[in-house]
Amino acid sequence: MVDHTVRSFDADLETLDRHISEMGGIAEKMLSDAMDALATMNIELAQKVIETDLRMDALQRTVEDLAVRTIARRQPVAIDLRDTVGVIRISADLERIGDQAKNIAKRAAKIAGEARLPRAIVGLKSMHDMAANQLKDVLDAFAQRDPDAAKAVWRRDAELDALEDAVFRDLLTFMMEDPRNITFCTHLLFCAKNLERVGDHATNIAETVYYIVTAQNLPGEERPRGYDATALA
Amino acid sequence: MVDHTVRSFDADLETLDRHISEMGGIAEKMLSDAMDALATMNIELAQKVIETDLRMDALQRTVEDLAVRTIARRQPVAIDLRDTVGVIRISADLERIGDQAKNIAKRAAKIAGEARLPRAIVGLKSMHDMAANQLKDVLDAFAQRDPDAAKAVWRRDAELDALEDAVFRDLLTFMMEDPRNITFCTHLLFCAKNLERVGDHATNIAETVYYIVTAQNLPGEERPRGYDATALA
Repeated sequence: MVDHTVRSFDADLETLDRHISEMGGIAEKMLSDAMDALATMNIELAQKVIETDLRMDALQRTVEDLAVRTIARRQPVAIDLRDTVGVIRISADLERIGDQAKNIAKRAAKIAGEARLPRAIVGLKSMHDMAANQLKDVLDAFAQRDPDAAKAVWRRDAELDALEDAVFRDLLTFMMEDPRNITFCTHLLFCAKNLERVGDHATNIAETVYYIVTAQNLPGEERPRGYDATALA
Repeated sequence: MVDHTVRSFDADLETLDRHISEMGGIAEKMLSDAMDALATMNIELAQKVIETDLRMDALQRTVEDLAVRTIARRQPVAIDLRDTVGVIRISADLERIGDQAKNIAKRAAKIAGEARLPRAIVGLKSMHDMAANQLKDVLDAFAQRDPDAAKAVWRRDAELDALEDAVFRDLLTFMMEDPRNITFCTHLLFCAKNLERVGDHATNIAETVYYIVTAQNLPGEERPRGYDATALA
């Protein structure tokens, strides 16, 4: 009987892991599609990203429902409880990464009619590369339950913040150079903020993975920060 | 024995309700303090808001821990289960409202050295009034478990979005009028976005309250929206 319960619990955890993996893959695709839509002013691709977000919302609800039922039925303790609660948190962060991609896609659709400034998008692409790497690495750290890999992701968050700071300065400079750049660059300021938030969510996931495996918290508010992203000028 | 379990469950729910009420009060205070700090360039007040956010993070963890233990121990069903999971969601939304207030406070601290444009802050104050009302009303709706009051909050979200749209247009106009306004107004653009997000979280809480009481979803993605806040120009 105990054995049966253990196996049922493992089956629940495997299902939860599969959902997290699916959400992670969708989030990565939404982000790269949103960036492509922004760079190429592809309204259809932007629309596809916006629609995909509904799938993320549904998956998050599925994960939450299954995890809550698992807690009620199996009454897990220790690492099993941390794991089950952890996937609820991770699915919430992944859903919010989907929201950030959706926000970028919405701006890509709006921006399509504006005067463009291609050099203004270069920095955003670098931010996306860095954020996408962070996301990929933290999903691997979760799949492997590897606290060292999670900590490495967590440490690198400062680099994305520093890059955002540089991108903000550049965008402000373009705006000051020519008022006709203001509308376009304002959209991009918000896209930069969205990408920085993706990094924050990857860092949250890193903290959750570290906690699941070690039962210790990485020091949340003491997150290494090279720059304060609100320092615009 | 059943009676004892029921009473223990009720005691857990009462504790959770008290925590939500405390988080709600702190969130309201953080928001109004952050706006005061912004309007009066009060760096100390801004710092106080930033520090208070740690209390919100701790309260959210407390709520999540107690709710998870309640689910494991009492195995609630139906409205009791919806209520216990609902408070986890509501505490997450309140914690994120605290984050928005913290973001405004951080900008208030940065902005203190910049050339000011007092008329640019007027629209933000209106946004804060509206967001604070939404927050107050949805906290009351939760305390009363009143689905009609929750639905009324949910319907009003479009008004805040419309106001944000007007504030964005004004800020862009100030930026185009004089490049010296660009840095200051860019900070305010992000504050306006923070206030709009407060409204979104109030709306999320309204959806949760409605779901707790009725077991029905308000149509999430069909939220009434007068304007799309990403439509800057």
